[in-house]
Amino acid sequence: MTSPEKLRALRRLMRREGLAAYLVPSNDPHLSEYLPECWKRRHWLSGFSGSAGDIVVTMREAGLWTDSRYFLEAGVVLDPRAFKLFKKGVTGTPTIEQYLARKLRRGDVVGIDPHVLSRTWGETLESALSAKGVRLAFPSRNLVDEIWKDRPPMPAAPFAPFPERLAGESVKSKLTRLRKELDRLEADAHVIAGLDAIAWLFNVRGADVAFNPFVVAYAIVTRRRATLFVAPGKVTPEVRRSLRGCAELRPYTETSKGLRALGREHARVLVDPETTNRWILDQLKRAHVTFAPSPVVAMKAVKNATEVRGMRAAHVRDGVALARFFHWLEWAIPRERLTESDLAACVDALRADETGNRGPSFDSIIGFGGNGAIIHYRPLPGKDARVRARGILLTDTGGQYLEGTTDVTRTITLGKPTRREREIFTRVLKGHINLSRTRFPKGTKGSELEALARQGLWMGGLHYSHGTGHGVGHYLAVHEGPVGFSARNPAVLEAGNIISLEPGCYVDGRYGFRTENLVVVVRDTEFSTKAQEWLRLEPLTLCPIDQRLIEPKLLSREEIAWLNEYHRDVYREIGQRLAPEARAWLRRATRRIAQ
Amino acid sequence: MTSPEKLRALRRLMRREGLAAYLVPSNDPHLSEYLPECWKRRHWLSGFSGSAGDIVVTMREAGLWTDSRYFLEAGVVLDPRAFKLFKKGVTGTPTIEQYLARKLRRGDVVGIDPHVLSRTWGETLESALSAKGVRLAFPSRNLVDEIWKDRPPMPAAPFAPFPERLAGESVKSKLTRLRKELDRLEADAHVIAGLDAIAWLFNVRGADVAFNPFVVAYAIVTRRRATLFVAPGKVTPEVRRSLRGCAELRPYTETSKGLRALGREHARVLVDPETTNRWILDQLKRAHVTFAPSPVVAMKAVKNATEVRGMRAAHVRDGVALARFFHWLEWAIPRERLTESDLAACVDALRADETGNRGPSFDSIIGFGGNGAIIHYRPLPGKDARVRARGILLTDTGGQYLEGTTDVTRTITLGKPTRREREIFTRVLKGHINLSRTRFPKGTKGSELEALARQGLWMGGLHYSHGTGHGVGHYLAVHEGPVGFSARNPAVLEAGNIISLEPGCYVDGRYGFRTENLVVVVRDTEFSTKAQEWLRLEPLTLCPIDQRLIEPKLLSREEIAWLNEYHRDVYREIGQRLAPEARAWLRRATRRIAQ
Repeated sequence: MTSPEKLRALRRLMRREGLAAYLVPSNDPHLSEYLPECWKRRHWLSGFSGSAGDIVVTMREAGLWTDSRYFLEAGVVLDPRAFKLFKKGVTGTPTIEQYLARKLRRGDVVGIDPHVLSRTWGETLESALSAKGVRLAFPSRNLVDEIWKDRPPMPAAPFAPFPERLAGESVKSKLTRLRKELDRLEADAHVIAGLDAIAWLFNVRGADVAFNPFVVAYAIVTRRRATLFVAPGKVTPEVRRSLRGCAELRPYTETSKGLRALGREHARVLVDPETTNRWILDQLKRAHVTFAPSPVVAMKAVKNATEVRGMRAAHVRDGVALARFFHWLEWAIPRERLTESDLAACVDALRADETGNRGPSFDSIIGFGGNGAIIHYRPLPGKDARVRARGILLTDTGGQYLEGTTDVTRTITLGKPTRREREIFTRVLKGHINLSRTRFPKGTKGSELEALARQGLWMGGLHYSHGTGHGVGHYLAVHEGPVGFSARNPAVLEAGNIISLEPGCYVDGRYGFRTENLVVVVRDTEFSTKAQEWLRLEPLTLCPIDQRLIEPKLLSREEIAWLNEYHRDVYREIGQRLAPEARAWLRRATRRIAQ
Repeated sequence: MTSPEKLRALRRLMRREGLAAYLVPSNDPHLSEYLPECWKRRHWLSGFSGSAGDIVVTMREAGLWTDSRYFLEAGVVLDPRAFKLFKKGVTGTPTIEQYLARKLRRGDVVGIDPHVLSRTWGETLESALSAKGVRLAFPSRNLVDEIWKDRPPMPAAPFAPFPERLAGESVKSKLTRLRKELDRLEADAHVIAGLDAIAWLFNVRGADVAFNPFVVAYAIVTRRRATLFVAPGKVTPEVRRSLRGCAELRPYTETSKGLRALGREHARVLVDPETTNRWILDQLKRAHVTFAPSPVVAMKAVKNATEVRGMRAAHVRDGVALARFFHWLEWAIPRERLTESDLAACVDALRADETGNRGPSFDSIIGFGGNGAIIHYRPLPGKDARVRARGILLTDTGGQYLEGTTDVTRTITLGKPTRREREIFTRVLKGHINLSRTRFPKGTKGSELEALARQGLWMGGLHYSHGTGHGVGHYLAVHEGPVGFSARNPAVLEAGNIISLEPGCYVDGRYGFRTENLVVVVRDTEFSTKAQEWLRLEPLTLCPIDQRLIEPKLLSREEIAWLNEYHRDVYREIGQRLAPEARAWLRRATRRIAQ
């Protein structure tokens, strides 16, 4: 079926349901970053596969709303006979609410599958529409599913217990802590829809989506009972055994029953507005719902000693793969004809060589020259660039390991860099180091620290328009809340948080620079007293920073000292695990800079 | 009357009105920082004169809620037979809402004068009380006024036009700009209660409160009309002339009529929730009220070229007074027996010597030794400390000048400082310089920059628990919104903003350090392009920073260069205006530090 055919079929159904418009957002019922194939309805309908893009279909027009990361890609893949591209954030582009208010008339009805409508968007949408006399309706089936004949089935991969040896805490202990939080929040029950929260809480890992070891499930935790709603075919005897005595297993399709039971008991139910869809709220109609961030999100963000140890071990393996990769790269680029996607395949393969590797943690970004300046670039085989012997190469890649998750960006020069390239790289590095080496009193938020990573660039008239860091899961999602280094992030940092630290700088069409380590927040033992705890950051990532791109004159003595110490640690941890040639390369790549 | 007698009389009236509790907050009807005498009801009732403190009187108990700045003072002045002290922010202290919910029973009524109830507090209070079945009531007269027999009259000082030569913009132009904002916000009218907004908008200055050149008034601005409600006896012919053709003058007592007329017209009225009392909202019952920050607040915060020039000129005068003060201090301390309040009187007198001075802009803070560590310390004659020949002296003072407002903190050493004193002072200074010299892209918020002033201290295990800077008015209030350097301040900085920059560090009982300049946000001409505007900060304050307290080894080359340049500017601007002895002192105080 072509896009116009699909839209024709969809409009027939809209007519049947009496809808003036139908919404097909990116979301799945768990409001996930990565979706199982069966829920990629927007992709199927439009051909657009970016991570963010919402579709509105009216009787006359259909539009896709996406942001600047995807303007290029959407422009190429959308069929102009079917879809109009709405560029979010560009002056003059209406929001979906404004568009609907303009196109629809009093009495019109807008349809959406309540499973894919987030609570937050639902609120905005309903208030905007009701002001214009337009109503939101929830047809009983997703209309796209009705016309998508060869829709893949729900993911059926079995999932496995995640051993306490790696998780560092039993399910029982996690549930006890969660129930204490529910007490504090005066809630009888907590409904969990976020797949990463479920995987963490029940110590399970699955294979239902790409890049994230999640299992599709809902969970309800009450004072006395914990229930995991998951397709029975996926439950292995090991999982059944691991959850015995602490959680009950029920079919995914019975989630509604479980939710409605809470309503019948008029329970006080805690619901996270960020990860809860409208359908859940409808099932909870008779319950007393309180909206608050799930306590699981904050609990999960504070890694225990075992998790931190696991993350360190994963980063040693990752460091070995990266050293082999960059060593090979230096040899291969002048000799072979390689594209960006060749390099992506190579780094993925080298990671796969390492014990416990479970594939990449996201689509590898390998951007040569101008492609490095496209912040969310992904090299697509056949459409990507050749990596030449002279230029700047940005690599942002990561791995999933049983013991942890990695995410690392390095920018290297191929051939001799220009003075300007060295200046920009060094100013990015100044920011990276200045934030890495800071100490701060407990109570400080990530939003307060971010400027420390920006000032080095600012002093040279340079800046970047993305955040400086996101939380990272422990063999979970590479992006997780609530902490981060970003002006909009109000979460207070705590020892055990693991965050990416990734300032960058981009010159359109020419090159992009970014230097990213994962760091763990640790107690500063030198400064901490009983009255005041102090914290600092420790790098987890073990990968040399390209010294050919450093202009030492731009670094302070303290910054050079940090860099030398970092490189000494990289060599100490990685060196002995490499074959002699790669080890010799690493020794050169981590040599001391004179002060 | 003693406090217990006053409370007895108040409770008689409460009984008459059927009230179980009566609230006497700090606020006046304009929610001002400084109150005219007639509205200092909380002070009259309790004897407590701090800037923050709210009273709750029930039939059995009366309590004063204040914060840590005033625990000491409140403990001393409150009559324990009458008032219980509730220490805000201390674990276990109930909020006023919690206290009332605990003490009162279903059906009870709490009284308050709606003129002194802010919209924000009103919302919190009503929702907390209604949850317990307690009602809020608004007796027609303020009950304290009924028993305060010798209450001073409303301030009657005449007020004056503030010439366009100093304001830099006509009232007409300001009103045109405001009306454009009202258009944008889809409002027909704007009610203004904030006295600084009124003084700025109508180019008038008065003498109704201490420290701030304000006139007590309300204003209503509609698309066609602007009305200033002010006591007729205060209106001089000059004011009448200056406002002719752009604003109408009506008696203060007719404000209610003006507000109710907006209700009759069902006007869409813009109201600032921060500065609007409950009484105003009651008068507007039939209007369509929208709550949003007053556009005047943001307009006023962007100083025009004349205002910035005026602020610079005021700071030259202020710098002369300060140089004379610190020069005299160095001579006098070893020779005379002086107290903190003697020094405060002296600096006030030296400022009064300067052309255009209109008194201090706030109560001078002169804190010797441990008193310097009390962040909002005010020396009270007879209760203050003697300034001895050895120790650290913190001075935080400011002046009102016709051309602008100043606010400056310097910390100096008397006698030879210890190594630790030098370290702390220098770390505070590092933060001061690092924020002062930063450049940043347009769009940056003050909250994002604050860490730059903190990191120097953090790296030594030191920190401070106050904000780093507040907006400052142009011959208006020394504290004004919306901009500032503080983690909680979301306002985006713009060229023309004037802000204090005042990191500090305090060791309880020993000493306090703070270095404060006012800075103006200016366009960075070197970096700005058409696509991206860049900003930087320029110091306005002209006063040497005590070099005896600087440990140069802790400063970077760039920081020393900033300091030398700053001191060169101070000498250049101030030197020639001083008598030879003071000039010689200033030359020494501003000498170059070797790198």
